[in-house]
Amino acid sequence: MKELEERIQEDGIVIDNEILKVDSFINHQIDTRLLNDVCTYLVAPFHGVDKVLTIETSGIAFALGAAQKLGNIPLVFAKKSKSKIVDADHVYTAMVKSFTRGIVSPIYVDKRFIKSGEKILIVDDFLAEGNAILGLIEICRQAGAQVIGAAVAIEKSFQGGHAKIEPLGIPVVSAADIRGFENGKVLFRN
Amino acid sequence: MKELEERIQEDGIVIDNEILKVDSFINHQIDTRLLNDVCTYLVAPFHGVDKVLTIETSGIAFALGAAQKLGNIPLVFAKKSKSKIVDADHVYTAMVKSFTRGIVSPIYVDKRFIKSGEKILIVDDFLAEGNAILGLIEICRQAGAQVIGAAVAIEKSFQGGHAKIEPLGIPVVSAADIRGFENGKVLFRN
Repeated sequence: MKELEERIQEDGIVIDNEILKVDSFINHQIDTRLLNDVCTYLVAPFHGVDKVLTIETSGIAFALGAAQKLGNIPLVFAKKSKSKIVDADHVYTAMVKSFTRGIVSPIYVDKRFIKSGEKILIVDDFLAEGNAILGLIEICRQAGAQVIGAAVAIEKSFQGGHAKIEPLGIPVVSAADIRGFENGKVLFRN
Repeated sequence: MKELEERIQEDGIVIDNEILKVDSFINHQIDTRLLNDVCTYLVAPFHGVDKVLTIETSGIAFALGAAQKLGNIPLVFAKKSKSKIVDADHVYTAMVKSFTRGIVSPIYVDKRFIKSGEKILIVDDFLAEGNAILGLIEICRQAGAQVIGAAVAIEKSFQGGHAKIEPLGIPVVSAADIRGFENGKVLFRN
């Protein structure tokens, strides 16, 4: 998607030819207009979606945008910690390694919110190694729900996430597909 | 706002006459249609807003909805932890006590994203003791930005947050104002 790729070239900051910092428009400050356009692009291939599923924190805004564009369907976000108002016995859980933080932590979804047979679209801001999305797929598997796709604003396909998810029969859609970094510049696949 | 109050009566769960669990439609699963309506209601009194400010996690969806209704203005969310891609020397910070978790933790906003003179609308899902919003107000004060209001989906005004914020000259708007709980039932102010 040209609009997002141009914005990444303009305002994205590449650190150590590995991490792309897009906190001025994606995941600390959010450009609401750009987000709306990205979400329109991301949901276009998907039909008959019952729910959008994401993981806190920075996936939530894109998941809401996607849920709105899909006809204001419900949105569920997996939690990274159990507060005292989440019942430990009634959650699906999976272990997820954070790409930016490097630690492995559990994520939780209350069993009431993902049900057997539901068609789920997973949405996130980033796809790198794929750990977060694989964790969400695992939670849907436990629930007996069907993941009909994974839609992300930005994927760094060279970091392997895409290649782990598509063989599961789950199509991956991204609004910007990064194939690498070179001298602090972002290289897109197309 | 009648629609939200009715939904709270129907699907909210009161725990120990103190905590209201609304995770089936507000802060774990989100009813996107209801959120859109709540956000339309919340932003109606405010004009000339430059940015919406919230705090991760569950404020993000309402903040995005509000930013959309205000003409797709930018949205900033304060972070609860510094990842390795947040620069420690370039953030505003405040200490916030979590009502549901009971612990005091720092929140951060990158200095690039709140600027002197900007008119900020603070948005959150809940207002209880007011700690999160007071932290966000403190961050705006450090930045020299003007907080023109605090808009929350649900406030429990009997827990004191409202009474701490309005004396600062900051109007508080909520879509549902809870004055107490009685035998597991929610009592609204109006």
